[in-house]
Amino acid sequence: MSFAKLDDLNRRLEALSHALAILGADEATHMAVGGGEARAEAMASLAGMQHRQATAPEIADWIEAAADEALDDDQRAALREFRRQYVNLTCLPAEFVEKQTRARMRCEQLWRDLRAKNDWLGFLPALDGVITLVREEAAMRADVLGLEPYDALMEQYDPGNRAADIAPVFEDLKAFLLDFVPEALAAQEDRLAKRALKPLSGVYPIEKQRELGLALMAAVGFDFTHGSLSVSHHPFCGGVPTDVRITTRYRTTEFLSSLMGVLHETGHALYEQNLPVEWAHWPLGKARGMAVHESQSLFVEKQIGRNPAFWRWALPLVDRHLGESWSSEDILPHVHHVERGLIRVDADEVTYPLHVILRFELERELVAGRLATADIPEAWNARMRDYLGLSTIDSPGDGPMQDVHWPAGALGYFPSYTLGAMMAAQQWSAFERETGPSDADFAAGSFDKVNAWRRDKIWSQGSRWSTPDLIARATGAPLDPTYFKDHLKARYGRP
Amino acid sequence: MSFAKLDDLNRRLEALSHALAILGADEATHMAVGGGEARAEAMASLAGMQHRQATAPEIADWIEAAADEALDDDQRAALREFRRQYVNLTCLPAEFVEKQTRARMRCEQLWRDLRAKNDWLGFLPALDGVITLVREEAAMRADVLGLEPYDALMEQYDPGNRAADIAPVFEDLKAFLLDFVPEALAAQEDRLAKRALKPLSGVYPIEKQRELGLALMAAVGFDFTHGSLSVSHHPFCGGVPTDVRITTRYRTTEFLSSLMGVLHETGHALYEQNLPVEWAHWPLGKARGMAVHESQSLFVEKQIGRNPAFWRWALPLVDRHLGESWSSEDILPHVHHVERGLIRVDADEVTYPLHVILRFELERELVAGRLATADIPEAWNARMRDYLGLSTIDSPGDGPMQDVHWPAGALGYFPSYTLGAMMAAQQWSAFERETGPSDADFAAGSFDKVNAWRRDKIWSQGSRWSTPDLIARATGAPLDPTYFKDHLKARYGRP
Repeated sequence: MSFAKLDDLNRRLEALSHALAILGADEATHMAVGGGEARAEAMASLAGMQHRQATAPEIADWIEAAADEALDDDQRAALREFRRQYVNLTCLPAEFVEKQTRARMRCEQLWRDLRAKNDWLGFLPALDGVITLVREEAAMRADVLGLEPYDALMEQYDPGNRAADIAPVFEDLKAFLLDFVPEALAAQEDRLAKRALKPLSGVYPIEKQRELGLALMAAVGFDFTHGSLSVSHHPFCGGVPTDVRITTRYRTTEFLSSLMGVLHETGHALYEQNLPVEWAHWPLGKARGMAVHESQSLFVEKQIGRNPAFWRWALPLVDRHLGESWSSEDILPHVHHVERGLIRVDADEVTYPLHVILRFELERELVAGRLATADIPEAWNARMRDYLGLSTIDSPGDGPMQDVHWPAGALGYFPSYTLGAMMAAQQWSAFERETGPSDADFAAGSFDKVNAWRRDKIWSQGSRWSTPDLIARATGAPLDPTYFKDHLKARYGRP
Repeated sequence: MSFAKLDDLNRRLEALSHALAILGADEATHMAVGGGEARAEAMASLAGMQHRQATAPEIADWIEAAADEALDDDQRAALREFRRQYVNLTCLPAEFVEKQTRARMRCEQLWRDLRAKNDWLGFLPALDGVITLVREEAAMRADVLGLEPYDALMEQYDPGNRAADIAPVFEDLKAFLLDFVPEALAAQEDRLAKRALKPLSGVYPIEKQRELGLALMAAVGFDFTHGSLSVSHHPFCGGVPTDVRITTRYRTTEFLSSLMGVLHETGHALYEQNLPVEWAHWPLGKARGMAVHESQSLFVEKQIGRNPAFWRWALPLVDRHLGESWSSEDILPHVHHVERGLIRVDADEVTYPLHVILRFELERELVAGRLATADIPEAWNARMRDYLGLSTIDSPGDGPMQDVHWPAGALGYFPSYTLGAMMAAQQWSAFERETGPSDADFAAGSFDKVNAWRRDKIWSQGSRWSTPDLIARATGAPLDPTYFKDHLKARYGRP
């Protein structure tokens, strides 16, 4: 039976995925510094094995034959995702993938070196090479998938997302934010004029910050029998659903950024830990995509973790672990701080979408060939001035060179961040509409209801639906920026 | 070119070995408790891939063809080991290996449960099934390798070791120890009569024990850019040569057993870290076998770590980390404590060989079919009384059920422990003969000379020579129990 062959194949692929996931997490957390070269060689070799096994020509026959077999609903959904995976893996020739991998790796290495030196001109040829190959990739994928080129790239990250649907949503959000950012800043000024910001500075030993983080993780639902927290230079959520590895980094003079990071990664982890076990080795059993994943991390970080009710419960815990008695009035101005800045990853939830929309707009122009790589700095600067009133023309390192995504050839990924933020707000609204307000639960440290809702609507669904369908089914409506705007207005607007 | 194909194949096999080694170490140290099932499935699948790739029929042709190619000395040695690996992997039919794996796993699971219950009769059928399959395995291997059945088993652990060579050496050692154990115990009594044993009890925080262990590891040569120390239930040395993972376990009331364990695993680690890098992905570049590996761990644990000169240097470090000022006279009676006991892994270096010789004698009878599995307890008890004056007839859990080796089907392995101890003593003697006494170096915390000697004679040789040849080349003489006996007499005998 062909479906059984696909099932068996995916068990083997899952073993390689498992190895790659754990080796990757291990590299960032526990590997000896001199172990990198052998690790890179082993992982490249395993990834090659996985790609060869996943793209064998006979798989096309199995997929075709399985469609005529007697399958139940789950198997039929699984088959859809087997096909999706196979088509997406086979639509680029092997020589092209190799050429692209080399170009990306070279460009990423250059980027690490030249970003700090603000050396755009030294970086340009390598980036242009990557962009050229991305255009070729988009054209080839578009051809096979019957999509617009940029959509064919987004399809790799968020199946079903289309620029024609997203662009108007982003336009709407952008128009709102151009007015709202100044309003939120003014509202913040008013609040600070009434009550000066109390610094959170102190000395917070790592072990105590860790204990505090573990306590919050456990409370919001992290299952420590299927995961752990450790330390890495860049925080991430990795590992496998039965053993999710999240990381953070600590500064002993400040605790809030690490703690909010832990909540963010915990959001990713909850999604992974609660995926359907019975489909674990099928693509169907994986998380749907980057936007939905980000919606889960932002749900925990923003909807839960920046909620004033949450802090009514969390502050005594902070006190117990760090020995600091802050009031909500002390801590919320930090948790809700808004500031225009150059760097996306440092941005707050009000200004963050403008960083993403800027990139989305430029990416589409780049992929379409209407923007030349050489002209990125001017285009970036012009939008940065329009959207956030800041100039990056003299500091490309804090402008178009700040992110790894473009050197890595990952065009089509950036929209996921803000789509995730909007989806999180929309899920939150649907949840509260269905179950009533959560303030009392959160203030009591109870997150069962909100987790049960997400388990039912999102986590248990794996990859059964396209990204837009998953959100529409979960919330009763297609993606709508209203919820996110209302969320920002309620939290950051004038009273 | 066929050699190039073998080279390429072994790069791919190395990637799988790397993954299995790191996944295995990770499982024992950092894996979440609920991650075991998926980990076991992934590792079984990767091991299956590795076995299929390593036993493909075309490899036989490559090996044959490569023999006619223009190869340098290293390549010719590599080819010898490619052949050895291929023959040893292919001499059992796949169905037999599967049957054996199931029988072993079932027996190991039973063992974990029944050992504590002293339930020999419940355990017997499963063990008998494993022993029956071991006899079949030995016969098949013997046939292909042209060896005696028991030798064909030992060949998996220590290439070149033959029972006909080892049995007389063990006879000699046994005869010596039957006289020497009472003498060593009497000498110990004399010393204790003169100076009572001072207990080492206290409270030693894990973090401080860890720091002390790291300091000793670094001093005796462990390279922390290529390895690390962590905690696991059973201490081990795992990982890969570029990233060696050793572990220990701590009790806060006692520090010596953890510390000696750290030195033991460090000995294994030094061998791995110093294997020839240029052959790393070939069988030629691996450690030679279990006996030689054990000789390296015992060299550090016994020849260095129980040397009085070593403790002259180490005691101030113990003092610095644990805040305890012991004298050599306080600590050496603990380090050199001798006691007859039932349990092999708890035995000191004087009585340990009798535990091994007992098992070696019974194993040979078992494999030859001259001893029935059902008769093991009586045979064990008779030898235990003869060799150590102890009875195990009422406590099989502390007798023939104490080790995992037999339930795991690993007959032929036990000799390695005592062969390793003898080889370590012989290496020590050769080293001191060539370079002069080391007391001053050790007392100064300098281990460069002894490491340079072992790097040259043992570590750099990888698997270039058979086990007996490696020892003969390193020490100038074939394995000879005299060195080990002299070592025991000097350290434990009457003055």
